[in-house]
Amino acid sequence: MNTKILILNGPNLNLLGRRQPEVYGSTTLADIVDGLRDSFPSVDIVHFQSNCEGALIDKIHEVGYDDSYAGIVLNAGAYTHTSLAIADAIAAIERPVVEVHLSNVFAREEIRHRSLIAPVCRGSISGFGVQSYHLAVQALISDRR
Amino acid sequence: MNTKILILNGPNLNLLGRRQPEVYGSTTLADIVDGLRDSFPSVDIVHFQSNCEGALIDKIHEVGYDDSYAGIVLNAGAYTHTSLAIADAIAAIERPVVEVHLSNVFAREEIRHRSLIAPVCRGSISGFGVQSYHLAVQALISDRR
Amino acid sequence: MNTKILILNGPNLNLLGRRQPEVYGSTTLADIVDGLRDSFPSVDIVHFQSNCEGALIDKIHEVGYDDSYAGIVLNAGAYTHTSLAIADAIAAIERPVVEVHLSNVFAREEIRHRSLIAPVCRGSISGFGVQSYHLAVQALISDRR
Amino acid sequence: MNTKILILNGPNLNLLGRRQPEVYGSTTLADIVDGLRDSFPSVDIVHFQSNCEGALIDKIHEVGYDDSYAGIVLNAGAYTHTSLAIADAIAAIERPVVEVHLSNVFAREEIRHRSLIAPVCRGSISGFGVQSYHLAVQALISDRR
Amino acid sequence: MNTKILILNGPNLNLLGRRQPEVYGSTTLADIVDGLRDSFPSVDIVHFQSNCEGALIDKIHEVGYDDSYAGIVLNAGAYTHTSLAIADAIAAIERPVVEVHLSNVFAREEIRHRSLIAPVCRGSISGFGVQSYHLAVQALISDRR
Amino acid sequence: MNTKILILNGPNLNLLGRRQPEVYGSTTLADIVDGLRDSFPSVDIVHFQSNCEGALIDKIHEVGYDDSYAGIVLNAGAYTHTSLAIADAIAAIERPVVEVHLSNVFAREEIRHRSLIAPVCRGSISGFGVQSYHLAVQALISDRR
Amino acid sequence: MNTKILILNGPNLNLLGRRQPEVYGSTTLADIVDGLRDSFPSVDIVHFQSNCEGALIDKIHEVGYDDSYAGIVLNAGAYTHTSLAIADAIAAIERPVVEVHLSNVFAREEIRHRSLIAPVCRGSISGFGVQSYHLAVQALISDRR
Amino acid sequence: MNTKILILNGPNLNLLGRRQPEVYGSTTLADIVDGLRDSFPSVDIVHFQSNCEGALIDKIHEVGYDDSYAGIVLNAGAYTHTSLAIADAIAAIERPVVEVHLSNVFAREEIRHRSLIAPVCRGSISGFGVQSYHLAVQALISDRR
Amino acid sequence: MNTKILILNGPNLNLLGRRQPEVYGSTTLADIVDGLRDSFPSVDIVHFQSNCEGALIDKIHEVGYDDSYAGIVLNAGAYTHTSLAIADAIAAIERPVVEVHLSNVFAREEIRHRSLIAPVCRGSISGFGVQSYHLAVQALISDRR
Amino acid sequence: MNTKILILNGPNLNLLGRRQPEVYGSTTLADIVDGLRDSFPSVDIVHFQSNCEGALIDKIHEVGYDDSYAGIVLNAGAYTHTSLAIADAIAAIERPVVEVHLSNVFAREEIRHRSLIAPVCRGSISGFGVQSYHLAVQALISDRR
Amino acid sequence: MNTKILILNGPNLNLLGRRQPEVYGSTTLADIVDGLRDSFPSVDIVHFQSNCEGALIDKIHEVGYDDSYAGIVLNAGAYTHTSLAIADAIAAIERPVVEVHLSNVFAREEIRHRSLIAPVCRGSISGFGVQSYHLAVQALISDRR
Amino acid sequence: MNTKILILNGPNLNLLGRRQPEVYGSTTLADIVDGLRDSFPSVDIVHFQSNCEGALIDKIHEVGYDDSYAGIVLNAGAYTHTSLAIADAIAAIERPVVEVHLSNVFAREEIRHRSLIAPVCRGSISGFGVQSYHLAVQALISDRR
Repeated sequence: MNTKILILNGPNLNLLGRRQPEVYGSTTLADIVDGLRDSFPSVDIVHFQSNCEGALIDKIHEVGYDDSYAGIVLNAGAYTHTSLAIADAIAAIERPVVEVHLSNVFAREEIRHRSLIAPVCRGSISGFGVQSYHLAVQALISDRR
Repeated sequence: MNTKILILNGPNLNLLGRRQPEVYGSTTLADIVDGLRDSFPSVDIVHFQSNCEGALIDKIHEVGYDDSYAGIVLNAGAYTHTSLAIADAIAAIERPVVEVHLSNVFAREEIRHRSLIAPVCRGSISGFGVQSYHLAVQALISDRR
Repeated sequence: MNTKILILNGPNLNLLGRRQPEVYGSTTLADIVDGLRDSFPSVDIVHFQSNCEGALIDKIHEVGYDDSYAGIVLNAGAYTHTSLAIADAIAAIERPVVEVHLSNVFAREEIRHRSLIAPVCRGSISGFGVQSYHLAVQALISDRR
Repeated sequence: MNTKILILNGPNLNLLGRRQPEVYGSTTLADIVDGLRDSFPSVDIVHFQSNCEGALIDKIHEVGYDDSYAGIVLNAGAYTHTSLAIADAIAAIERPVVEVHLSNVFAREEIRHRSLIAPVCRGSISGFGVQSYHLAVQALISDRR
Repeated sequence: MNTKILILNGPNLNLLGRRQPEVYGSTTLADIVDGLRDSFPSVDIVHFQSNCEGALIDKIHEVGYDDSYAGIVLNAGAYTHTSLAIADAIAAIERPVVEVHLSNVFAREEIRHRSLIAPVCRGSISGFGVQSYHLAVQALISDRR
Repeated sequence: MNTKILILNGPNLNLLGRRQPEVYGSTTLADIVDGLRDSFPSVDIVHFQSNCEGALIDKIHEVGYDDSYAGIVLNAGAYTHTSLAIADAIAAIERPVVEVHLSNVFAREEIRHRSLIAPVCRGSISGFGVQSYHLAVQALISDRR
Repeated sequence: MNTKILILNGPNLNLLGRRQPEVYGSTTLADIVDGLRDSFPSVDIVHFQSNCEGALIDKIHEVGYDDSYAGIVLNAGAYTHTSLAIADAIAAIERPVVEVHLSNVFAREEIRHRSLIAPVCRGSISGFGVQSYHLAVQALISDRR
Repeated sequence: MNTKILILNGPNLNLLGRRQPEVYGSTTLADIVDGLRDSFPSVDIVHFQSNCEGALIDKIHEVGYDDSYAGIVLNAGAYTHTSLAIADAIAAIERPVVEVHLSNVFAREEIRHRSLIAPVCRGSISGFGVQSYHLAVQALISDRR
Repeated sequence: MNTKILILNGPNLNLLGRRQPEVYGSTTLADIVDGLRDSFPSVDIVHFQSNCEGALIDKIHEVGYDDSYAGIVLNAGAYTHTSLAIADAIAAIERPVVEVHLSNVFAREEIRHRSLIAPVCRGSISGFGVQSYHLAVQALISDRR
Repeated sequence: MNTKILILNGPNLNLLGRRQPEVYGSTTLADIVDGLRDSFPSVDIVHFQSNCEGALIDKIHEVGYDDSYAGIVLNAGAYTHTSLAIADAIAAIERPVVEVHLSNVFAREEIRHRSLIAPVCRGSISGFGVQSYHLAVQALISDRR
Repeated sequence: MNTKILILNGPNLNLLGRRQPEVYGSTTLADIVDGLRDSFPSVDIVHFQSNCEGALIDKIHEVGYDDSYAGIVLNAGAYTHTSLAIADAIAAIERPVVEVHLSNVFAREEIRHRSLIAPVCRGSISGFGVQSYHLAVQALISDRR
Repeated sequence: MNTKILILNGPNLNLLGRRQPEVYGSTTLADIVDGLRDSFPSVDIVHFQSNCEGALIDKIHEVGYDDSYAGIVLNAGAYTHTSLAIADAIAAIERPVVEVHLSNVFAREEIRHRSLIAPVCRGSISGFGVQSYHLAVQALISDRR
């Protein structure tokens, strides 16, 4: 049991690899998921992305009480800074959630310095690009042991 | 006419009774609705819950112009503190809305002290647990007379 | 025992029914108390009003340790927003206190959005006019059972 | 009718003339009242001072509905900056209230720059020492005509 | 190419023409779209409205990379002031977005003075009622040339 | 000597009597000056109005060192709340300045609650309409004696 | 009548076309006025620019009661954010004022996010460069009809 | 002379020893006064407690000009944080006042971090429980010498 | 070329030497200019003072594109803290501007701690009295080389 | 055991007695320590002063786990208001720390009103000059018993 | 080259394992370093701890230009929230720095929510206890490749 | 006497000339000191740099009472904005201190706009690069005469 990990991505992350690829690179969410499956062959990596706050909460609820999951790696995008409802969902469930960000949110504009979800997450990892996801999965696996 | 009352619940309230029942008790939303139907047999209690801000607004619109409703009892959960759009929906409709909260939101963290929807509601009731809903239905009935 | 409930009113509420009756109506505090006695014949409704913060605190102390009371229904008027001392009195006593307001305080000016006493009350009810008192007594009775 | 004017003084103003007379002068509240009676022989100058917020509110209520008064000259002392309850009392009554201060409150520390009662007064006069009271009585008389 | 313009409306704008028509008039969203088609016969006016933040983002993504569109005219309603996610969507796409408001948002309550989406829009137009949409379409057309 | 008093009016006060006379009345600045001359025949009332901050400062300098003036009655209009330069001018001169306002500025929007010039004026009078000017001249005369 | 429109430009806008033309382009205020006259041949475009707050207020007063004007297109430059006096002038006059900005002020530093004049203008248009003026004239003409 | 010291206690301190004695202990105000009389036999310890802000001010005035007092030990309870009037009373009198608190107010909620009376007291002592009073009397005695 | 330096003084600085000379000394602006001419004989010192924000901006524009100037030494007085328009003028021109203050503005009241013009100046010098001007001219000369 | 007490002084306190002795007196830190040794002969008074935040933390660690100490009397000087690291050190150790200040910090500028270390200290004593230290040692001794 | 990684620990972290071991566990900094050496045998783990801000800066400088280092793993303790100087040091050097925290700083008191160093670090990892260090070393190694 | 001037540099300034020399230039602190010695041959230029707040305070104390010094030129780096302790040291000593900055701190991020040391310095000079030091030495010399 505990062999699954949900990679949960919030608003606008579906545009990864599509937006100005000459600047941001051409790595897509699918590529990230593939990379995680390569790096962690013993983990069942499940992926879900939505631009809808409610759909993200639904998914957190669904996975949050499911013992087959070791936890959730959550990149909530802009909802990180505005969604108290997602924070409440994380606080309510039983599985640990690790917050990740591709960029260093603290080096961006002020509104992105406050994370509403950080206080209820197991931990936070930001600034390492795609590697942020790898470190987060690593953290959940180590935590599980 | 005016015999219906909508019990409208927002994000994470679907977890009632499931989240740490040894702490929060095992009363579910369904139990609350049943209790209201028992207490107010002459009222047609209608129930809707969603984790999606947009779905809640859609429902407020649908009921808000329907003369068969005496009003709405709304527990907007975390959207209470972040959703100006729900507040606008309440301000736009013709049926009264009563804000309820299970817990005393003023005794919780600061971000929960400000209610964006309170200014446009008929009134607010918080802190009485499940009884908050009963008092709110009572308020709408008395108001109706 | 627990058959009494104190209706405690703070500053300027003695003017009810006297101030611009063509606008605010002619219901006085005495009328409210009479209405509560009619609605709740099995409850011994006791009433006290004062414009003095200290006198309100004295009364809260007197009733707060008296087992013949089920609790206090408190409309602290403007002291709601400025009196930390009344809040401390409520926190210190053994009987529950329910905060009530005739108007929707959240729809008024900003200084009235913060209640210093709400965090230490059993619950809060505002915006239902005279009915706010009825709902509060109802809440204390249900609580008592 | 309207021949009376209440001179209402709040906390610590009873110390006038007693506190460091070599600095603040020896004019007492009684001297101020005598001076007003000399200057305005046709007005029935009534005086009341209290350090108690509640007693000031009681007096405002008593005079505020009494047609024999042209209005109230109020120096609320420190309550100017902290008493929303006195402001509510002024807003509730029918007689005009003129706010006065001996000193220029705007030249003192920041907490004294905000007057809670100013928005509900007929007008405000500050900084002219004892003359502030004379100007205020003058204002009420002119207003009356 | 570039012959289409998306008219994108956010929460509660579907109530236009229905809410208190004696006050707000009876112009509906459909009427606005018809008016735009009349005024700009050479433009293919496409319309979408949703109360769901996520659905608005999905639509912005869909149109934002579609060369057949000259741009988007966006009235984000209350999300204007709370949705960083919509702002991120606008920043990510390739087509220009013009922010419009029917009313003068700066003359309304303070929470509506800050627009999260304005900084990433091509420009903003507010306060001209239905005409705001016409000016915005005009701006996109001129921009295109 | 000291027989002159300058009535100094700032921005937009030249519109008095012209702006919506059915609402604001038809009293003009000229009428106010005439009224002051009638009420205070022994005083040489001098008048100056400008919409230009610099011109007001120039005039304050000119009069501020002129012993033939008992002082200045200043209605700085909106500059009351934004002009630190006028405040500096008042602080620098030798003649006393009395701040006046027609309306009760404290009952208007928040930006008008802070007066930059109040701390350096001899005193402040607001809310008495045209009478504010009369009281201010009275104050300067009494002060002079 | 109503055939004139005043194009009113505030501080530093006289430098248009002169300041780093290789960056900002060589379009001058005169060019903008010529462009407007070309686009709106039936309108009598009048132009005035000043770096002096008082001169701008004088001009607003002069035009604001003149029925031969349909309204004013105002780019108040930096005074947008600091001049309460200009806002008062706009509020006082009878002709409508449309606020325009060449750049997207919301994408600039924080002090430029607050417009003191926006709340009293008919509407606001920003971010479209020279086209902002064209849209504003269009708005005033449509408004006039 | 100077042989008396007033122990002045504010709101809710009369409940000491009565409120949850199993938690807060059973020491009453009377016990504290007895303890001080035992520890300082050469000092005439006088005690006064009131829940009324005005009564506390009256007492400060009474003692503040009485040379038979070495000073006042004041635990103003919640008024510490809200009463500018008590602060003014302390600033006005001639005898020194030492502020005491049983608990470490800085370790409690934010509203208790600001003391309005501290700036005008001789010194402040907090956090030592009943011993705070002993240290304060000690301070006044040493000061007297 | 570049042999001229403009000494530009803002509001109230024309009072130097006139205001309480026993306190502030009798050095006038003319004396300062003479002193600079003595100290820097090879520089063509030009002087301009105005109390009008607009006139200062006009002068900055006039000199700011004139290659015969090495730069501007600007003491903007109170406009330092309130004039975004002067800041915009400085940012727009080609000649460097050095901000000077006679006093240490950071040791004065809080409103004088923020300089709107500092961010766009070449540098700032404050607190050295008349010498501040000498250092500023020195800085411009060295810069020029 | 517990016979030692550390008197720990932070930045600039080494200047006591040296800085303007005609104003601040000539009492040095050495004099204070001598005075404490005289007053408390049964206590082993140990003294340490440093201007370095790190050295103060090192000393707190060293003493904080040493059972031969009854506690620490800490005057952290300006670090009181800026050093979260010293606060963490105090929170981490086992010996109690009493905060002292010579002056009444609450009567000084605003930045000195917030103490970062107060919340984690056993108690605070300020305003009694050298006597503050004596009271603090007394407090630790009483506490020890 | 690049085979070394500096583990840099700030104030109070030397107490790890010593402070209430029954609560915080007995893992010491030495244990953490040993664990890292075990997990990353190919990396030369160097360790430095100091309670002194200056010593930490000195060490950052020393390592920051040394090509034998792959980077720095920095747990700055309380200096995270107060040291702009450490942030400047990180910004100045050439080697990447990864910020780590044992606890979830966002779940602690508000002053710990702002990290001054985060904006200039390569990335941040918090909340995973000792594992935070492992993930940080992993991040630097991956980065290096 | 007074022939020495201390050039005191704070955190990270030792990196001058080393950090990205292609961007920041290769001028080192040693070069600056040499340049000052060349420009001011009659002054004994003494130099000290430290990254440790305490060491800077120690040095300020040492020089601050030494009559052989004319004063201190202080570039406190990041401590400018965070060190109240350095400000206290400057306020305590007898020699004047001139604050210097290489860059225009007001054009950098907000945290660098507030200088804690400016209010207690003789004056401030910022934005002139290495020349800032030359002007500061010049200021101290002129001051000395």
